[in-house]
Amino acid sequence: MDFERFYPPAVRAALAYEPPGAWMPRIRRPDTIRLNRGYPFPAAVPVADLGAAAAALLAREGDAPFHYLGSPAMGRLPQLLASRSAQRGMPVGDGELMVTMGGAQAIDLTARILLGPDDLVAVEAPTYMEALETFRNYTPHIISYRMDEDGLDVTALSVDLAARRAAGQPLPKLLYTIPSFHNPTGTTLSPERRRQLLAMAEEYDFLILEDDAYGELAFGEIPIPLKAQDTKGRVIYAGSLSKTIAPGLRLGWVHAAAPLVAAMFCFKKDLENPYVQALAAEYLSTVDYGARVTALRESYRQRRDAMVDALRRHTPPDATWTVPQGGFFVWVWVPGADTVALLEAALDEGVGYVPGKYCFFGSGEGREHLRLSFSYLSPEEMERGVAILGRLMGGRRGDPAGANPR
Amino acid sequence: MDFERFYPPAVRAALAYEPPGAWMPRIRRPDTIRLNRGYPFPAAVPVADLGAAAAALLAREGDAPFHYLGSPAMGRLPQLLASRSAQRGMPVGDGELMVTMGGAQAIDLTARILLGPDDLVAVEAPTYMEALETFRNYTPHIISYRMDEDGLDVTALSVDLAARRAAGQPLPKLLYTIPSFHNPTGTTLSPERRRQLLAMAEEYDFLILEDDAYGELAFGEIPIPLKAQDTKGRVIYAGSLSKTIAPGLRLGWVHAAAPLVAAMFCFKKDLENPYVQALAAEYLSTVDYGARVTALRESYRQRRDAMVDALRRHTPPDATWTVPQGGFFVWVWVPGADTVALLEAALDEGVGYVPGKYCFFGSGEGREHLRLSFSYLSPEEMERGVAILGRLMGGRRGDPAGANPR
Repeated sequence: MDFERFYPPAVRAALAYEPPGAWMPRIRRPDTIRLNRGYPFPAAVPVADLGAAAAALLAREGDAPFHYLGSPAMGRLPQLLASRSAQRGMPVGDGELMVTMGGAQAIDLTARILLGPDDLVAVEAPTYMEALETFRNYTPHIISYRMDEDGLDVTALSVDLAARRAAGQPLPKLLYTIPSFHNPTGTTLSPERRRQLLAMAEEYDFLILEDDAYGELAFGEIPIPLKAQDTKGRVIYAGSLSKTIAPGLRLGWVHAAAPLVAAMFCFKKDLENPYVQALAAEYLSTVDYGARVTALRESYRQRRDAMVDALRRHTPPDATWTVPQGGFFVWVWVPGADTVALLEAALDEGVGYVPGKYCFFGSGEGREHLRLSFSYLSPEEMERGVAILGRLMGGRRGDPAGANPR
Repeated sequence: MDFERFYPPAVRAALAYEPPGAWMPRIRRPDTIRLNRGYPFPAAVPVADLGAAAAALLAREGDAPFHYLGSPAMGRLPQLLASRSAQRGMPVGDGELMVTMGGAQAIDLTARILLGPDDLVAVEAPTYMEALETFRNYTPHIISYRMDEDGLDVTALSVDLAARRAAGQPLPKLLYTIPSFHNPTGTTLSPERRRQLLAMAEEYDFLILEDDAYGELAFGEIPIPLKAQDTKGRVIYAGSLSKTIAPGLRLGWVHAAAPLVAAMFCFKKDLENPYVQALAAEYLSTVDYGARVTALRESYRQRRDAMVDALRRHTPPDATWTVPQGGFFVWVWVPGADTVALLEAALDEGVGYVPGKYCFFGSGEGREHLRLSFSYLSPEEMERGVAILGRLMGGRRGDPAGANPR
C-alpha cells in the first residue's frame, strides 16, 4: 500500500531528506576506532554510583518511581537543577524550568512551539547535525550563518538581518546557537559577541535557543551563558546531564520564560521518564557533582591535548583545526579533501568520524571538513585512529614538531 | 513580553484548550483515596526483580547502557517484544516494530505523521483523555463515534461515513480505538465488529490506531487484536509495558507497516531511553513474563470484583456501570449527576476520580459519568472511597443485595 498519500504536506517534505542518523558511519569492522562518538569515555560514566543510587532509591521508595508520578526523588529533580543553574548565574523563576529528555527534547519542543512550515530558523554553519534533523521536521526554511574562531560571526548575522529587514524579507523567529565549546567546531562565542547577539535579538525580535550541553566542561574559565545575561526573557536555555553524567539517562532541562515553558509542556505530554528522573535526583543528592565536573574538565583537557598532539604529528601540513577550550570535539579542515569519500576508505581501515557535510543544511559545504571526538576514546586509540586518517589524507606533515597550525 | 505572537497558528490553536492533565483531580488531602489513578497496584510492580535486573545489567555491561547506543541488552528489546507479539498472532516483519516511550509516544508519533491541521481524526466517545490531548495538538478536527456495551458502535460509524462520502465531506484519515478493555468504559469490541471495522477501513481508506495497553489483562479469554487480523497493513498497533510491568519505565512499542514505522522514526529523534530499554530487556530475559501476566489477570479480576461489589452496595439505585472483562476501569453513569461539581465535594472528603467530561472532545457530554479505577487501590480503600462517593451521589441503593444493574 502507498502510505505517502496519508502524510500531510509538511510531513512529506520532512521525509524527503536523508533519514536521521545518516551522519553515523556504517561501521564495518568490530575493531573500528570510533572518532565519531561524542560519548563520555567509559570511566567517566559513574556506573557504581548510579548502581548504588538505583539500589538506594528502590530501598527507600519501593514502587513509587515506577509509576507515572509520585516519587519524592523525582519531585526533587527540578529543584536540584534550578539550584545548580542559580550557582551559574541563572536564577530560575516559577514555572521557568522543565525537565526534558536530554537536550534533544528541549530542541524539539522549542521547534514545536515556534516553527510552523512557513517560519524561518537561523542556525550556525556548521552546527549540530541532530539539531538540523529536528528543525527540518518543522520547517524547510533554515538559514545558516558562518562561524569563525570566536564562534558565530555576529557581524555577518547583523548585516544579513538588516538587509532582510530593508528588503522586506522574512526574519528568523529563532536562532539556535551552541555558544560554548561548539559542536562540531569546538569554538566559543566571545563575551563581546554574546552582548551583541542579545542586543540583536531585541532589535530584530527573535528568540535564542542556547544549547549549553558542553558549557561546564571548560578547560579554563567557564563561559558565562547567554541566559545569565538575558534580561528580556529571549533566551531558551537547554541544559543537559548527558555529558556530565551519562547520555543514556536522556536527561536535560529547559530554562525559559514561564509562558514558553508552559507552551512546551502542552506538547511534551508523557514523553518523560519518571524512574530515570528519580534515579538522577537520588544520584545528584548523594555525590559531589561540582567536584565531579571539576575532575571531568581535567580529564577532557588531557584528551584534547592527546588529540591535538596526534593531529599535529599525523595529518598533512595543510590540515588545520581549532584547539577547543572545552567540550568534546575538534573540527578539522583538510583543503582539497572529500571527507565523504575519505570515510569509505577510513571505515575499511577501521576508523569512523563524522563527515563535515552533515553539519551544514543543504549548502553542500563541509566536504573538506570532518568532526573528530576526543571524549570517548583513550589517547592511545586516538593516536592510532588519527595516524590512519593522516595516512589516508596523504601523509604526515613535514615538520612533526611544528607549531599548532592555527 | 508577549510570546504568543511567536507561535504558529496551529500551536496557538492547541494552546487554547485547557492544559493537559486538567482531568487530574487537584488533591486536597494527603489521605485522599485516588480512584482516579490508573496505575498498577504497588505490589504489582516487580521492584525486587527490577532492582536485581538493574544490578545484573551494570555488572555485565558496565557503562554501555548509559550511552546513546551500544548496550547489548538494549539491542535485544525489539526482538523480545516481537517474539511476544508473534505468540499473540501478530508476527512482526522487518522494520515493522519500534520501541516507544509508552503507548503515549506511539499515539504522538502516529498523529505526527498522519495529522495536519486540516485532517480529520476519528475517536470513540468517550475515549482516553490523554489521547485527546495529543490529537488536538495536531488538528482541531476530531470526530467522535458513540460506544455501547460491545465497544465502538460500528454501525453508527458506517452510517456516518457513508453520509460523509455521499455529501462530499471529509473522511477521517485515522481512527483511534481501544478495542479491548477500553479506557474509560471497560468495554470490549466484539469479534464481529472487529471484522466490520477492518472492512470499513478498507472501504473508506483510513488507518486504525489500535491502543492495546490493556489487551493482555483479560479476566477471561484474551481478545484477538485487530492487528492479528490486519491483512492490509491498515492497523498501527500500540503496545505497552506500562500495565504489565510498570508505567514509570515509559516503555511501549509500535507495530505497523514498515513505511509508517520509518516515517515515525524520522520524528522520534532521540526521544527514547537507552538505559531503561536495556533494563527492561534484562528484566524480560530473566523472568517468566507469561506467568506474570497470568497472575496479574487474576489479581485485577479480584479487584474488579471488589469495585463492582462496592458500587452495588453504595451507589444510588439509578446508577449503572459496565462490568469490565479486563483492564483497569469502570465507567459509572449517575443519571442527573454533575460529576464535575461532585468531584469538588469528593475531594473535600478525600476521594478522587476522573469526571467523564474529559473523555469527550468538546461535546459537553460526560457530565453524568465518571471513571473509577480498580487497578491501584486495595479492595478496602475502594470500598471506603465508593462508600463516600455513593453518599455524595445521594445515598445507597434500596436493595444492597440487588443484581448487577446492567
